Amino acid sequence: MVNFETSPEMYRHWKLKIEGAVATLSMDVQEDVTLNEGYKLKLNSYDLGVDIELADAVQRLRFEHPEVEVVVISSLKPRIFCAGANIYMLGTSSHAFKVNFCKFTNETRCAIEDASMNSGQRYIAALNGTASGGGYELAIACDEIYLVDDGNSAISLPEVPLLGVLPGTGGLTRLVDKRKVRRDRADVFSTLAEGLKGKRAKEWGLIDGYFPTSKFQEAVAAHVQSIVEGNKRQKAERGVKLNPLQVEVSDDGREYKYVQLKLNRDGRYADLTVHAPQAETPTTIEEIETLGDAYWPLQAYRELDDALLHLRVNQLEIGLVCLRTEGKIADVLKVDETLAAHQDHWLVREIILHMARTLRRLDLTAKSFFALIEPGSCFAGNLLELALSADRTYMLNDPEEKVEVAASILNKGALPMSNGLTRLQSRFLAEPEMADAVFEHEGTFDTEAAEEAGLVTFAPDDLDWEDEIRVAIEERTSLSPDALTGMEASLRFAGPETLDTKIYGRLTAWQNWIFQRPNATGPQGALTNYGKPTQPQFDYKRT
Amino acid sequence: MVNFETSPEMYRHWKLKIEGAVATLSMDVQEDVTLNEGYKLKLNSYDLGVDIELADAVQRLRFEHPEVEVVVISSLKPRIFCAGANIYMLGTSSHAFKVNFCKFTNETRCAIEDASMNSGQRYIAALNGTASGGGYELAIACDEIYLVDDGNSAISLPEVPLLGVLPGTGGLTRLVDKRKVRRDRADVFSTLAEGLKGKRAKEWGLIDGYFPTSKFQEAVAAHVQSIVEGNKRQKAERGVKLNPLQVEVSDDGREYKYVQLKLNRDGRYADLTVHAPQAETPTTIEEIETLGDAYWPLQAYRELDDALLHLRVNQLEIGLVCLRTEGKIADVLKVDETLAAHQDHWLVREIILHMARTLRRLDLTAKSFFALIEPGSCFAGNLLELALSADRTYMLNDPEEKVEVAASILNKGALPMSNGLTRLQSRFLAEPEMADAVFEHEGTFDTEAAEEAGLVTFAPDDLDWEDEIRVAIEERTSLSPDALTGMEASLRFAGPETLDTKIYGRLTAWQNWIFQRPNATGPQGALTNYGKPTQPQFDYKRT
Repeated sequence: MVNFETSPEMYRHWKLKIEGAVATLSMDVQEDVTLNEGYKLKLNSYDLGVDIELADAVQRLRFEHPEVEVVVISSLKPRIFCAGANIYMLGTSSHAFKVNFCKFTNETRCAIEDASMNSGQRYIAALNGTASGGGYELAIACDEIYLVDDGNSAISLPEVPLLGVLPGTGGLTRLVDKRKVRRDRADVFSTLAEGLKGKRAKEWGLIDGYFPTSKFQEAVAAHVQSIVEGNKRQKAERGVKLNPLQVEVSDDGREYKYVQLKLNRDGRYADLTVHAPQAETPTTIEEIETLGDAYWPLQAYRELDDALLHLRVNQLEIGLVCLRTEGKIADVLKVDETLAAHQDHWLVREIILHMARTLRRLDLTAKSFFALIEPGSCFAGNLLELALSADRTYMLNDPEEKVEVAASILNKGALPMSNGLTRLQSRFLAEPEMADAVFEHEGTFDTEAAEEAGLVTFAPDDLDWEDEIRVAIEERTSLSPDALTGMEASLRFAGPETLDTKIYGRLTAWQNWIFQRPNATGPQGALTNYGKPTQPQFDYKRT
Repeated sequence: MVNFETSPEMYRHWKLKIEGAVATLSMDVQEDVTLNEGYKLKLNSYDLGVDIELADAVQRLRFEHPEVEVVVISSLKPRIFCAGANIYMLGTSSHAFKVNFCKFTNETRCAIEDASMNSGQRYIAALNGTASGGGYELAIACDEIYLVDDGNSAISLPEVPLLGVLPGTGGLTRLVDKRKVRRDRADVFSTLAEGLKGKRAKEWGLIDGYFPTSKFQEAVAAHVQSIVEGNKRQKAERGVKLNPLQVEVSDDGREYKYVQLKLNRDGRYADLTVHAPQAETPTTIEEIETLGDAYWPLQAYRELDDALLHLRVNQLEIGLVCLRTEGKIADVLKVDETLAAHQDHWLVREIILHMARTLRRLDLTAKSFFALIEPGSCFAGNLLELALSADRTYMLNDPEEKVEVAASILNKGALPMSNGLTRLQSRFLAEPEMADAVFEHEGTFDTEAAEEAGLVTFAPDDLDWEDEIRVAIEERTSLSPDALTGMEASLRFAGPETLDTKIYGRLTAWQNWIFQRPNATGPQGALTNYGKPTQPQFDYKRT
């Protein structure tokens, strides 16, 4: 069972050092501290355990150290920055684990870019040694890349020539779409096992600069200092501590304070319920700061994020997640109102950005989602996004009992999908005016109004409800899980494309395909044979 | 060996009828006329042979029948429009064949949309019976869809629920991105084996109308007539006949008039050479019309298209294609000048559109391409696109012998890639001014100028040339063909995304992944078990 919670005092592979506005995140992977058996993490190569720490550090820098303006990512190992994902780990992992590993590491790198773009924390990759494969992919997720010029250190993406797989942690996409490297040069670079050193790498736009060993630390430090000095943004005074989540784990699921995950293993589905705040929520910044990580939108979404990761990696057989909410609509809307009123305050900004990332994690989760809207639920404002992110939404139509949903200003753009649109915009691509109409509607939507507004898929009445939901669940969980994954990945992301959707859609899909190909993972495949005395044997048919 | 050449008098599965401005293309698949053994084409299901005829018809309508303004696609079988790709054919095909089959059928459907958008031939799907799977995917590639309302006929995408694969011939993408069907409805529709009938299908935007059986023909005909009457475009007088290509086939390759394909089977690469026109080319429309399909840009690109299809489907082991040209740069530029001068004439427009489609076929071919620019070559104007479409370009730098390339106005937008950009724009995403500079340059580019302008990847001198090319070819063909396919699909299409790139990138990649999954194609997979007494057995782990 993989645990996604950690904190700096527990890190085994990273050192986080904060000095004023500059954080240094140094990779120093412990070879023997692995998540699974059968491999050693040599040369700062990483497994999921290493990346969970990195993801934690990126998250904490935003909440706990808002004073940080530049994050330098480097390594404590001489002459090596990072050798990328551990090949033996990949070679011995199941297909599902490889896919989940890549998805999580991709999300970590997108979180770095999100921090840079939205939280004003600029990431500098200080490559004090060779960065190969996932090592260079980590660098290219940073804003700037500097490489030591020691006659030896290089950057490389050796996945294609050495392993028969892709630089699938965003590498290929960021080469041509983020750094906009000329495609023929990207082709040469991606097939060159030994990679490129400083001069050529700079010429081709793969790095931003290179310095001789003797001046490397100093030159990077001077550049970092110049960024800090040029930075005009208002400095936050002190951060908010992210304490460990309290979760009660049982065979049947996980019970957090606001989130409950109930596994129905026989039926291969889960109920995932988010509760509205149970007490009065604060309305002022001072109260929010005092509450810190106990403030509902932060705590509930941290819990939701953890539950989603758990579902993905530890509960592979669960194919369908029924999204439910419990509580008062007014309480959720009050939270949104407060968040919207203070959205320019750094902490509120970070809370909203975190909610958005969690919802994107949901969009990218390879499970089916049905939202079930029943009496006592509170699909309102930020929680309405759960219904909008679901593959389908069922809302009870019961004349005896009121069932309602509601929108808030947070549905208007604060919680964007990976494609850059709101979930309402994505839903109403054919009739954009329907998205506007949701906000022109006064008050809550009862079932009929919600159906008319296009917010729900089906609205069975109380006589049909139970049967219809049961049949829908049974039907969904009977279908091929692979076909569903491909279908959902296609239907969820209509409209515009971004770097993120290209990574999760195109690049990931090709990588998953290759991960299934005998040329990579068969007994004589390149990934299987890496480091062995045997040579890979390819079936050279092009497909 | 699959042959991609056909013509209406040879069709076995389609009837093409022209009446004034209206063409009717009726599907009447002969069960026993199959491309391979082991299946029957029941219920207007199709294999590659059926689609080759459709592609031919779509192409001929543009060249031979420019007077046609509306193309009605229907079926001659009672109560069935088309049951989609034949499942038994898919179930018994190799992975590579399935992938190539899907790619070709996708290109045919994109060609329909290209004809509609650029040639003013509007496509109407007249569904006189059920359209399932690929049948509905064909319909959704048309501009409008009308369904008979006979209490029985439905549209459906049953791939996910019945076969454990995707509606991968553009189906899922066109649902949400072309027709912009609401994603939750698309989800329901794509998991509903029996599909939807007229009323609900119209409500959800899946069709444009439905008519009772007794009025169906009449209603469609009236609508078609209203389109023709409302059409103001200038009518072309007569078309140009597309005669069969003359090709000499040998063990070593294919010899056309202007295109030569030479296979180096041992080295797993091919030389594909395009020759410039050998005689004076015409400059007036009258001369062009007289030449017809013998006019160089039409004949050479038809030959190139055929060679590419042959390479894809019949020469799987060829992993690399070396693109070469022979002839005088001035002769090629003269053709471009003539085409540009007459680009508003329907025939010239069609010739240019065909060149663009052929070049896009090249972009989408799962082989590596190296352009080799040597003395006597003519990578100029439209043929410069070959160099720009290559994964890499090598240009000889020889002080003794002049080697040159040149741009023409046709490089400025007439030959767009699937992403909507020119190949120069795609190349210079980081520095758009470099694309402009190509056109500001006077005259041809010698090797040094071409290198400086960013048009070539490497410019070895005469001492190194032979060795460098040999090593590059050997290295390329030694790599995993699957990793190369995924890499090239990622690096070739930087920048914006379109319906087409989404289909060939995202949807195709997911489909290819699923085609490899035991849940689809394993001994107990859904595709393998379709129509058998045994039930598919799924591994329900979600990935």
